[in-house]
Amino acid sequence: MSENRELSTALPVAPTRGRLRPLGLDEVRITGGFWARRRHVNATATLEHCRDWMERTGWTGNFRAVAEGRIERDRRGREFADSEIYKLLEAMAWQTGTGTGTGTGTETLLDADIAALTEAVASAQQPDGYLNTAFGNPGQQPRYSDLEWGHELYCYGFLIQAGIAQARTRGEGELTKIALRAADHICATFGRNGIEGVCGHAEIETALVELARLTGEERYLDQAALFIERRGQGTLADGEFGRAYHQDDLPVREATVLRGHAVRALYLASGAVDVAVETGDEELLAAVERQWEAAVARRTYLTGGMGSHHRDEAFGDDFVLPPDRAYSETCAGVASVQLSWRLLLATGDPRYADLAERTLFNVVATSPAEDGRSFFYANTLHRRHRGAVPAADEVSPRAESSLRAPWFAVSCCPTNVARTLAQLPAYLATADDHGIQLHQYADAEISTTLTGGHGVALAVRTDYPSGGDVSIRVDRSPQDHPWTLSLRVPAWTRGATAYLVDPDGTCRTVPPGTADITRLFRPGDEIRLELPVKPRWIAPDPRIDAVRGTAAVQRGPLVYCAESVDLPAGRDVDAVRVDPSAEPEDGPEGSVVAPGELAGQDGPGDSVWPYLPLDRTTVIAAERTEIVLVPYNSWANRGPSTMRVWLPTTET
Amino acid sequence: MSENRELSTALPVAPTRGRLRPLGLDEVRITGGFWARRRHVNATATLEHCRDWMERTGWTGNFRAVAEGRIERDRRGREFADSEIYKLLEAMAWQTGTGTGTGTGTETLLDADIAALTEAVASAQQPDGYLNTAFGNPGQQPRYSDLEWGHELYCYGFLIQAGIAQARTRGEGELTKIALRAADHICATFGRNGIEGVCGHAEIETALVELARLTGEERYLDQAALFIERRGQGTLADGEFGRAYHQDDLPVREATVLRGHAVRALYLASGAVDVAVETGDEELLAAVERQWEAAVARRTYLTGGMGSHHRDEAFGDDFVLPPDRAYSETCAGVASVQLSWRLLLATGDPRYADLAERTLFNVVATSPAEDGRSFFYANTLHRRHRGAVPAADEVSPRAESSLRAPWFAVSCCPTNVARTLAQLPAYLATADDHGIQLHQYADAEISTTLTGGHGVALAVRTDYPSGGDVSIRVDRSPQDHPWTLSLRVPAWTRGATAYLVDPDGTCRTVPPGTADITRLFRPGDEIRLELPVKPRWIAPDPRIDAVRGTAAVQRGPLVYCAESVDLPAGRDVDAVRVDPSAEPEDGPEGSVVAPGELAGQDGPGDSVWPYLPLDRTTVIAAERTEIVLVPYNSWANRGPSTMRVWLPTTET
Repeated sequence: MSENRELSTALPVAPTRGRLRPLGLDEVRITGGFWARRRHVNATATLEHCRDWMERTGWTGNFRAVAEGRIERDRRGREFADSEIYKLLEAMAWQTGTGTGTGTGTETLLDADIAALTEAVASAQQPDGYLNTAFGNPGQQPRYSDLEWGHELYCYGFLIQAGIAQARTRGEGELTKIALRAADHICATFGRNGIEGVCGHAEIETALVELARLTGEERYLDQAALFIERRGQGTLADGEFGRAYHQDDLPVREATVLRGHAVRALYLASGAVDVAVETGDEELLAAVERQWEAAVARRTYLTGGMGSHHRDEAFGDDFVLPPDRAYSETCAGVASVQLSWRLLLATGDPRYADLAERTLFNVVATSPAEDGRSFFYANTLHRRHRGAVPAADEVSPRAESSLRAPWFAVSCCPTNVARTLAQLPAYLATADDHGIQLHQYADAEISTTLTGGHGVALAVRTDYPSGGDVSIRVDRSPQDHPWTLSLRVPAWTRGATAYLVDPDGTCRTVPPGTADITRLFRPGDEIRLELPVKPRWIAPDPRIDAVRGTAAVQRGPLVYCAESVDLPAGRDVDAVRVDPSAEPEDGPEGSVVAPGELAGQDGPGDSVWPYLPLDRTTVIAAERTEIVLVPYNSWANRGPSTMRVWLPTTET
Repeated sequence: MSENRELSTALPVAPTRGRLRPLGLDEVRITGGFWARRRHVNATATLEHCRDWMERTGWTGNFRAVAEGRIERDRRGREFADSEIYKLLEAMAWQTGTGTGTGTGTETLLDADIAALTEAVASAQQPDGYLNTAFGNPGQQPRYSDLEWGHELYCYGFLIQAGIAQARTRGEGELTKIALRAADHICATFGRNGIEGVCGHAEIETALVELARLTGEERYLDQAALFIERRGQGTLADGEFGRAYHQDDLPVREATVLRGHAVRALYLASGAVDVAVETGDEELLAAVERQWEAAVARRTYLTGGMGSHHRDEAFGDDFVLPPDRAYSETCAGVASVQLSWRLLLATGDPRYADLAERTLFNVVATSPAEDGRSFFYANTLHRRHRGAVPAADEVSPRAESSLRAPWFAVSCCPTNVARTLAQLPAYLATADDHGIQLHQYADAEISTTLTGGHGVALAVRTDYPSGGDVSIRVDRSPQDHPWTLSLRVPAWTRGATAYLVDPDGTCRTVPPGTADITRLFRPGDEIRLELPVKPRWIAPDPRIDAVRGTAAVQRGPLVYCAESVDLPAGRDVDAVRVDPSAEPEDGPEGSVVAPGELAGQDGPGDSVWPYLPLDRTTVIAAERTEIVLVPYNSWANRGPSTMRVWLPTTET
């Protein structure tokens, strides 16, 4: 690791040291393509949508109810509802800092929204910094009387992150001040001589480290480190889901795999990386790397989704990854990207960017509908019922609607997607003493100053992930200082061939990992990365019981699925069989066409019993056909449908 | 259907009409073999075990607490705890009527137990017949104020069945009188002019029909028919599990498949068959047959187990039968046997006896431990964790213990197994105008009078299910009246060959279904049925996602499983792969030895990501070995272990 000098001030994650230096929102702009479209919808629809729903459900009103002394009677929403306002504020703040792409009018409106919401939040803060609408006000349960489920520290975490976003975009403002008062209150209350406890839902840890990075105040870092060390000491009551649910079963540095509630586990791991980096704690960092590696190798869905338990929203056992029971909470996807990003910055290992890419395209991008006004909370990999479109004006149960819903009683996901999309440009590229690293591919303009004061500017052009060609044009480069451009060659290219063409037109194959070009670049130089985005069959590890005998299709970073709207009328995806002995091909409009068959509607006709001697099994009649597959992140945008990612093969 | 004349008085189910006439406990005795051993353990250990636990947990004491006016303060157990005392009473009553096989001493003790428990129960009955320790007493919720969850009518159902068991074994006694008073109270309260409701948990229906059969009183049948017709009219509140949970989504005669809470669904269907038979309602009978057929073809585990949802203990969707999530509640197995038996009596179709056999050997027989003092509540088909033996003196959660537990907070299963084993001889054979039908094979003595007053006695000798040879010796037969002996040729013989050898030594092959011999039998005649019990590979229907690419072994009616105690130290069953291209063979002590391999402990070594392009997958190293399999009903009797029924094949 090295010290990060000349850090941008517009960074969601700004470590003081690490293998790579992040580039800020002032250094990277997304200018077109897949993520620009998603960010545009986010800025112009989702932010407003979230604001209106929280007004309507009364969650915003909670703050005013505290100020007016009527919270006991009037409180609305779950105990963690405050956090949604904070996450929305954070999203709005990052959005003001990155340009909405819709003209300054929207930004002015966002500034006004931030001011109004901030005023409401401020009105509920107590003189000592305590701020929560569910606890600690007249007529309510006392402060910190339910650390297991109360989510007070969890809420502060998002408040602090919102305050940081404001400071790093518009400059320190009222929201930042509220956050600082809350943080000081936390240090006073939960410090070494304070309450010997942690929050049932990790999140405060990473926020406090970031606040230390913003302010340079060591005490915030110390408090975060203390929370990390206290976790796993059994300070939380052992509840119905067991101690692992809160990651309170083992100290962070002793655990070998991510476990328990997935979002909690991933926020905690992110905080642990932050603490490890800032304190130089190599052991702690190694522990999280080990946990990440084990979770990715054994507890992660093809989409990057994490969590296979509905009941406790938790990681399942190794290789227990049923597609029809995939919980794969959107927030776990967001949290996984946060963790991967922190590990990437600390270590430079491209496998973290690989997982971030997979998760962004197949979990984070799957959650919002095309119009940005409804969301998946859970991202299943197999849906057997068409279901109905949730009513546009009703709150839905969180993981049971078969289609995207406008809002949930527990609505953590929409605002989490919103803040991720708002800060997304910051996850594209980094720099180090040798040059610039591109981790994610999108149309972008990148401009930064390399070590030694050398200004560099790049323009990236690509239609990734539809196409695999990425062109990087050098717009500015020092005249006499060679440097290295490092390009991630995604792990998904394994077994296919990627090419790198240097400015001279020399072409070489590049294996998965990182491809470097070191030279004296000149303005106008073009580097081309050609990634093989042909659709390919993917086979699951044979230890995953739930998808044995199936295959999936991936094309570039995109996971594909069969959706019933593409089948003959009245047929469902469970009739689909694919034939992996032939190759899938590109179809129209981003689809893939795979060889396969559609099984008849009747099973083996001569038995009412579905288990037969092996030598007596009869084959269900099937009709050879081409199976249309669509990107998983686009499913359920054409009305109710059934869907599956893993498709039984004709061989089994 | 024909009228049942000359019915035994010692029958758990005594329809006045039907295709077959059941033989009573005075007509059929089990004299040895598998079920005799199980019944011996039941009589000498399980009954006492249940009695002691209910004394210890205070459930028995509830009745005395009502009588003494202190129930509000002192009540123990869940709202349906009364029913467990009734089921135990029923089990004890049938046991006194069938001989314990342990000398008359035990029977005398049982009579004393019945008298003592009956006295307690009687003390709690109100003057108008109302009887419940959870409702309707001073300080408690009013009677019938919670039909959805209160289980009052459910409890009466078991009380009535206990009263019937007493009447049909020792003769009408105090327990019968309590039951009659309760039944009259029900008719007065829930009749056409009474409460327009049904119980959230079906059970009362079948009990009232049986009481009508016992007493000849039509009003009990009318009340049962009324409850059947009211079901599906939405009289119960729609709760978190939906209306199908209580089978209140559709009228019984309109439903096409069993659905919702499995035990509720099966008790209800049993009651519907009873009503249909007694009222000659062919439409209703056909509806239940259709539901049974659909449930068996699409919603039943290889073991005969029903129910794949843990949360609501319910049937899953068609073909959603995950082995690791199999709920397969023991009580659902008991209820399924009850339903199959009623359908068999009504129709004579041997497929009902096929399912009953499968369920008895693989669910009902699996629940109790060898010593009869601990039980499975849920009967999973795949256990990944060894778990720990539950403490012998503690109540366990119902479906979460990995091993059999002595007692549960919801402890419906132990007493349900006990009453089933106690009445088991009544499920072996029937008669009709043509002769005698054997449905289940066990060492038994059968003696009855055929239509026309012809006395017949048979002695069955077999070591079924270990061996497949069944010898039936005619001990008594009319000198001048030919009759038909019908033998069920189990559906599991499909694809193998069964032989029937008549008294002359003539041998013929017999296909699955029913094999008849009609002749003038003479005492000393021996008929032999030779069933092919060689172990065989079984393949699942390709529509069952969760077990694609696996095979199981069945030998005769017994399902087998791999258990980790039979693997090298430290290895778990998930490492087992079997090779169905070679045949499994009989091993020592009832085991089966199957060709296969044991996968290495490490996966594909060159990737931390478990999904690879199909042409790049690496094979996990495996060591060829013989895999020992044991009967599923015997698993978890050798300490903590992992277990699986469906074993991945080496091909996938």
